[in-house]
Amino acid sequence: MSENTATRTRQSTRGRILDACRGLFNERGPADVTTAQIATTVGINEGNLYYHFKRKEQILEALFGEFEQELRKVAAGGSDPERYGDYLSGWFRLMWEWRFFYRDGGLIYRLAPSLRSRLQILSDYGQDQVRRVLEGQSRAGFIQATPEEIEQLIVNAWIVATYWIDYLRSRHGVAQITREHVNWGALQVMSLFRPYLTPAGMAMLGIKPERSAPLL
Amino acid sequence: MSENTATRTRQSTRGRILDACRGLFNERGPADVTTAQIATTVGINEGNLYYHFKRKEQILEALFGEFEQELRKVAAGGSDPERYGDYLSGWFRLMWEWRFFYRDGGLIYRLAPSLRSRLQILSDYGQDQVRRVLEGQSRAGFIQATPEEIEQLIVNAWIVATYWIDYLRSRHGVAQITREHVNWGALQVMSLFRPYLTPAGMAMLGIKPERSAPLL
Repeated sequence: MSENTATRTRQSTRGRILDACRGLFNERGPADVTTAQIATTVGINEGNLYYHFKRKEQILEALFGEFEQELRKVAAGGSDPERYGDYLSGWFRLMWEWRFFYRDGGLIYRLAPSLRSRLQILSDYGQDQVRRVLEGQSRAGFIQATPEEIEQLIVNAWIVATYWIDYLRSRHGVAQITREHVNWGALQVMSLFRPYLTPAGMAMLGIKPERSAPLL
Repeated sequence: MSENTATRTRQSTRGRILDACRGLFNERGPADVTTAQIATTVGINEGNLYYHFKRKEQILEALFGEFEQELRKVAAGGSDPERYGDYLSGWFRLMWEWRFFYRDGGLIYRLAPSLRSRLQILSDYGQDQVRRVLEGQSRAGFIQATPEEIEQLIVNAWIVATYWIDYLRSRHGVAQITREHVNWGALQVMSLFRPYLTPAGMAMLGIKPERSAPLL
């Protein structure tokens, strides 16, 4: 698999089907995409599509495999505290490029039940990596948080990062997620970490300390 | 309507149906409760149930009306900064006593579509009230946060308070929410506010300042 699954153009029919499906699923949601639409987008006939994937479930499983690889790559990349900005934008690029997995979770795991346990394993891995990154940042003096605060932070960040799309939909009727929405989601998640940044951590991220000294 | 909808025992058949449904829905979810089970729990026959409510949708709408009243009562109660502990526990009592609304959101709004816009209005009201409380706490010197931080805090708290149940289910396979889970959810939400508390705010809430002085 090449360096960047999400943006490369692939030559194999199977690869082109998966690229097309990721695009269509992001745009319309997996439930509203027909095999005819997939075949048309790829420029093949439905028989050929059927040769590669018998059911939508199999497409979702194959796409999840790619998402999994991308997430593992991003999650493992936070070991250098100096490159935390890149690390964060990696998470949000992931969220944008695979937004149907974040947005349509409930539905997807009904269509492809085998993904439930894979999501579990992937989430364990992701949270472990975030914990390692935060512990590293704490050792490096970039954040100051107790182990308990780090655990609460990991869970809250996970919840906000997972559900902000559903929040925008149910609270504000946002049907189509744009890049601006993703930036908004990123800021919401980052705001969780901000109170724990030390002056050195702020300097490292290029944030000016706006907050005045404590009142009391 | 009496002072405490959630715990009173009501005399009218209609009231007893609603109490029974709230209990059954909390326990099993609205989709998995049959009219026969409702009738048995109330001790009436199904014809009598049908006389009061023709469809499950109507039961959900009536229960939402009670939830609405309770939420408005809790949300309006945070004007006294000294009683913030009571205010918080009010929100979490609400969450426990009406947990099916938090847990089964997607399903409920499919069963009773009219509740979508009512939820919108109720959420607007709730968030406005939380904003007023935080602004009051800020003026009183109990928290220190910029207006932008307050907005981000309100949204993050709303997301965590809405989705922590789904998080426990999808991440940890928790099918049945207990009081311990609600306490855990409450701590997750409270941890969002904690970094913004001033020493006076901590003293007011009876929290010992555990965090040592900034490293740098």
